[in-house]
This record gives sequence, C-alpha cells and structure tokens, in this order.
Amino acid sequence: MSSMNNVIDFDEVSGILVCEAGCILENLISFLDNQGFIMPLDLGAKGSCQIGGNVSTNAGGLRLIRYGSLHGTVLGLEAVLANGNVLDMLGTLRKDNTGYDLKHLFIGSEGSLGIVTKVSILTPPKLSSVNIAFLACKDYLSCQRLLLEAKRKLGEILSAFEFLDSEAMDLVLNHLEGIRNPLPPSMHNFYVLIETTGSDEAYDKEKLEAFLLRSMESGLISDGVLAQDINQASSFWRIREGIPEALMRAGPVYKYDLSLPVENMYNLVEDMRVRLAEKAKVVGYGHLGDGNLHLNISAPQYDDMILAKIEPYVYEWTSKHRGSISAEHGLGLMKANKIFYSKSHETVQVMASIKKLLDPNGILNPYKVLPHSLTSY
Amino acid sequence: MSSMNNVIDFDEVSGILVCEAGCILENLISFLDNQGFIMPLDLGAKGSCQIGGNVSTNAGGLRLIRYGSLHGTVLGLEAVLANGNVLDMLGTLRKDNTGYDLKHLFIGSEGSLGIVTKVSILTPPKLSSVNIAFLACKDYLSCQRLLLEAKRKLGEILSAFEFLDSEAMDLVLNHLEGIRNPLPPSMHNFYVLIETTGSDEAYDKEKLEAFLLRSMESGLISDGVLAQDINQASSFWRIREGIPEALMRAGPVYKYDLSLPVENMYNLVEDMRVRLAEKAKVVGYGHLGDGNLHLNISAPQYDDMILAKIEPYVYEWTSKHRGSISAEHGLGLMKANKIFYSKSHETVQVMASIKKLLDPNGILNPYKVLPHSLTSY
Repeated sequence: MSSMNNVIDFDEVSGILVCEAGCILENLISFLDNQGFIMPLDLGAKGSCQIGGNVSTNAGGLRLIRYGSLHGTVLGLEAVLANGNVLDMLGTLRKDNTGYDLKHLFIGSEGSLGIVTKVSILTPPKLSSVNIAFLACKDYLSCQRLLLEAKRKLGEILSAFEFLDSEAMDLVLNHLEGIRNPLPPSMHNFYVLIETTGSDEAYDKEKLEAFLLRSMESGLISDGVLAQDINQASSFWRIREGIPEALMRAGPVYKYDLSLPVENMYNLVEDMRVRLAEKAKVVGYGHLGDGNLHLNISAPQYDDMILAKIEPYVYEWTSKHRGSISAEHGLGLMKANKIFYSKSHETVQVMASIKKLLDPNGILNPYKVLPHSLTSY
Repeated sequence: MSSMNNVIDFDEVSGILVCEAGCILENLISFLDNQGFIMPLDLGAKGSCQIGGNVSTNAGGLRLIRYGSLHGTVLGLEAVLANGNVLDMLGTLRKDNTGYDLKHLFIGSEGSLGIVTKVSILTPPKLSSVNIAFLACKDYLSCQRLLLEAKRKLGEILSAFEFLDSEAMDLVLNHLEGIRNPLPPSMHNFYVLIETTGSDEAYDKEKLEAFLLRSMESGLISDGVLAQDINQASSFWRIREGIPEALMRAGPVYKYDLSLPVENMYNLVEDMRVRLAEKAKVVGYGHLGDGNLHLNISAPQYDDMILAKIEPYVYEWTSKHRGSISAEHGLGLMKANKIFYSKSHETVQVMASIKKLLDPNGILNPYKVLPHSLTSY
C-alpha cells in the first residue's frame, strides 16, 4: 500500500484526519504535530508501520489506557473486498446509527476480510505537559493498588501505567548499553513507569509529586524518581521499551502477548518459574493499565523440552482465566489454530461463516486468523 | 429482558462491570457511585432504559465527547442468535486480538442480528469536581471557534459542549415553567453550555474561569456565567435538556437527529428557515462537540405541505454533506428505507447478507434497520 500515502483531509475543529492506508504512522504523527494534534496510538514500530496495517491488526500500543482502542477512534474506513467491490464507509462522524457498523469487521481481522485502503480517525489535541515517574514496588499487589490509586488521584491526566519485574530490569541492565537503574540499586521486585499528560505543566507536576509522596507514605511504593528533564524522561522510557531488544540479545526467547485479569496476571509468571525452575529465565512486563502481560521466557537454547513445559500450559492457563492468548499481536499464521483458547466454538463458527461470505475463495491473507479446519477450500 | 437484572461482577482495579442486559441504566449508575465509578454513558431516559437496549441501539448521550462511543467502552457481550445459539463474547479484557471482534455487530444493530443478554463495560473513575458555564455567542462561527479553543485549553477536563440557538431558548422560556435565561436578556443568537469534569475543584474552576476570561476578551463569547452551586448548574442543564419537552408543548413537531461536519452543520437550519419561511419555526440545538445536530421544526399543525418542504430535502442535504440521517436514534421501522442517504449500496448489500447469514428467517426485529427491498423472506 506504500504508494497510497496521502493525507486527504484534516479538520482542526473536530480533529478528524482522513488519509490513505499507506501513510507511515510517524509521518502522520509529524503532520498532526504541526497542527497541534496527536495520533491516538503510538508504538515502537511507528517509523515503518502503515496506518492501514495498524487498523487491520487493531494495534494497541502505549496510549491505549488514555485514548482507548482503534474501535473507538477510527470513525470510518474504505475497504476493498475479495470480489473487488469497494466498501465506502469513510465517514467522518462521531455518531452514526444508520445500520450495522461494518467497519469494525475490518479492524483487527488482519486483512482476511478485505484490504483497508483509506482511514478516518479522531485525533486528540496535543497537550503540552508530559511528566514521567519511575517507581519501585515491593510486590505485585502493591503495583495493582498503585494502579487503582493512580486512576483515582491522577484521573484525567494519567496516560501510561507500565510495569516490569526485576528479571526484566536485570536483562536490560546486563544487555543494553548506556542504561542504568534510576533508583539506587537494591532489592526491588517490581518497577512501574507512570506517565501523565495534561495542559498545565506546573499543576500536573505538583499533582504527580503529591501522588508520589502519598504513595510513598502509605508504603505502596518503596522508592521513586520523577524525571527532571526530557533526557531523563527518555531514559525511563528506554528501560521499558528496551526489554524486547535486551531479550533478543540474551539469546533464544519464547514470547507470549497475553491479556489477563489484572488481579491474577502475575500468577502466571510465578507458576511458569516453578515449572521451568533453572531451565530458563522467566520475565514479566507490560501494559499493566490495560491488563496486558508480555510473558517472555529466555532460554540458553531453543529446546523442545522447554517448549513442552511452556505450551500448551500457557494457553490453558490463560483460557482458564478467560484471558486472551493474543492481546495486541493478532493470530496470524502461527496462532490461527489456537483461537479456541480464547474464543468459544460458536463464536469461531460465526467468524468462519463471515469469512466465507466475504471471501468465498479464501484469497485474502489465506491460512491466517481462522483455524485451518474451518477454512479449507 | 427486565428479569435479567443482576450485576454479575465488578472489578475495582480495572473498573470493569459485568451485568445482565435488563439492568436499568440508573441502577447501574447508583451501583457504581457507591464504588467510586460512573457509567461511560448518560442519557435522559436513564430511569427506564436498560443497558442491553443501550448497547443494541449504540446509545450516545451526554458523555460521548469525553468517554467515546459504546464501541470503545463495551468490552464484551453475550448474545442469543436467531437459531438459539448463545454467543459467549463476554470478555473483560481491554485488549483481545484473537479473531474478528464480532461484538461490534451487535452494538447498534437494534436487535436485528441477535439479542444481547449480558454486557461487560469499562467504567471510568468518578471525578469529584464538575463545573458548568453557560455562554452566549454572536454567531455560529464563534461557537465553532469556541469549541476548538475549549478542546485545546480545557483539554483533558472538557466533558460536554452543547449548543442551542435563540429560537430554542425562546421555546424553553415560553413553554417551561421556572426557567429563566441566566444571561441578561439581549439579542444573543447562540448559547453554549460547557461542562468540565476533573479531580481538583479549585484548579478546575480556576482553569475554566481563565478560559472564559480569554474568550470574552477575544470576542468569541459575548456574555457568560459560571454556575456558583449545584442548583445553578442543574438550572443550566435544565435549559438544554428541556428543549424536547418545550417543543412538545409548543405543538406538532418534525424531529431530525443528524450528524454533520461541524463547520456546515448550522447551514442546514438556515436553509430550512428560508424554505419554510413563516410556515413553521425551525430550531437547532445539540451536541456540538460530537457534530450532532437536533433539527426540530415546530408547526401550527401536522401538514403534508410542510412535510413535503422538509423531506426528502433534509435527507438529501445531509447525504450531500456526507452526514448521517440518524446520529444516535437508529433507523428502526420509520427510517429503514432511508438508509441509502447515509450508506453506500455496496455497504447495505453486505449488511443484508450478514442479516441473512445470522437470521435467515428474519425473526429478529423484522422490518427494522434494513430496507424492505433487501429483506423480503
């Protein structure tokens, strides 16, 4: 889609952007920056990913806790169906209750129902004040209680709540250069990164400082530091965003992207440590505010014995807790047959019948998303 | 559904409520209030409407500008299909990219694809500070510019931006008791109600005051008043919410609920005044922040000559500007055949084929939503 890379329209009163599907996310971010707006999603791959792909895969990323998912922010789209018909659903309206809202079928279906060619999306105004704190918690329960307090006390300015465990921190410190732990080295079990975004620098900072002070006094956090400038802010984000790279450098890694109820999310990491004992290092981090755990298992080498300890256990565990075996990364080719861990048979049957309706010959992204048993042509 | 009125679960860390479809919206609001949370939607009918109906009709209401549509806040649902199958999509996850997100088919399809029986919804924490201002603008362009400024300057605390024209104000003053114009009587053409919701009373009020002062100085608003207590706040809302009742008391009324691009939304009201001249009173008001115009035409009596001046003109006008002929109220029985004003033929064809797939005998809410030509059984 890379040739379809034009911005079609931007309305600064409503903040609605209309563009072609091949626009690179980072280019859209720059375009909007000049107009005083931001994209409602942001992710590490912004320099190369295209907005059509973001929509087709229902990309999540770092701003979901504040601005919600693409099902809420995408107002319209144009898609080309398998039979060549162009579905023009490129509305720019916040409210439209005329018939079924079919655009949602194309958000997150990984191109298997149609190819997204144009997108209309609601963009929030850019707020000038961003503050970032890096905190330590003694246990997972404290992280959860801190999240609840942050939602209440920081309310409308909370824009990120990320967590990592001490194993993730060790990996980053050992495998990436130029990174140091901003908190005095001691035995912290969990780290939390909190970001606030608002429209008033002095007030927002004061609010975050008061929140940190109260959390320290009540024992919810055992240590913490507030970024004093943009360089320090970037260095805090670099720890969180550097984890995948650190894992890659550490050697073979088994990666899982799960949604789980926040309260028992970390139990899976601990259960997995018991199962694997000394055979591998189990790392837990992710978007705590969205209930999204990145479970990564770093092993000395790829080993079927290790894999057999992990799968299907991790999927069964997730399924038992009504979680999602793919929070943001989709099913693709590798997980198409694992859909039943997160979706009921009746639901998958309806998905397959919709696939058959819109793409009877299975020419759109074949073998992906739906289990092979249901999509044989 | 009224017997299915139980709250199933509420998780205060994530703010996720799971309940049966027959729960009355106001009961859910009270239930959450005790936990320190609010429903992400609010509407006049809250005392009798059920959450399952809200979801099935994709209800909009007063909080949409802040919390977005139900497509963003409903995390999961259970629906019973025409063949009796129960589709369990009652996830409580903010992120789940395992297959097509079918729940969206049931949000806003007015019960024609299945009956919603359970709902899981993300609820925001209750914020303690609410401030309301009632303002006057000399023209529609000023209202638009004020909206843009409000989004920028009030940013994260803006929770409502409603407008009414002087004809709507006159109707309320003439037909409802105990209502007075909070601004000194003079020739204002437009009124705007702005609400902010945040977590800090003193700061939020100061912010709104500074915004009003600047807007007054720059001439965007010609007059304005900030509610000093909860009674005055209610009296401001009463003006805006009293318009439908005032219209009903004034006599026969033709009602249209339209979404239009904000910049030319009010042109329709003015065009309609020219067309109808002295025959009827044309009133414009609505959720300006969402681009949602309630166009109401108050006539001395129901009259086919008047109707012929209004329709199909109002639909054609809306269609030409890529608006929606039903922003929040749905199509139902009366507007099913008017769907093509807002949706392309290809899109409606796909809707009809999905209806046929899920409800081959047309037993669910027959004759509604889709045009009769496409749903003959």
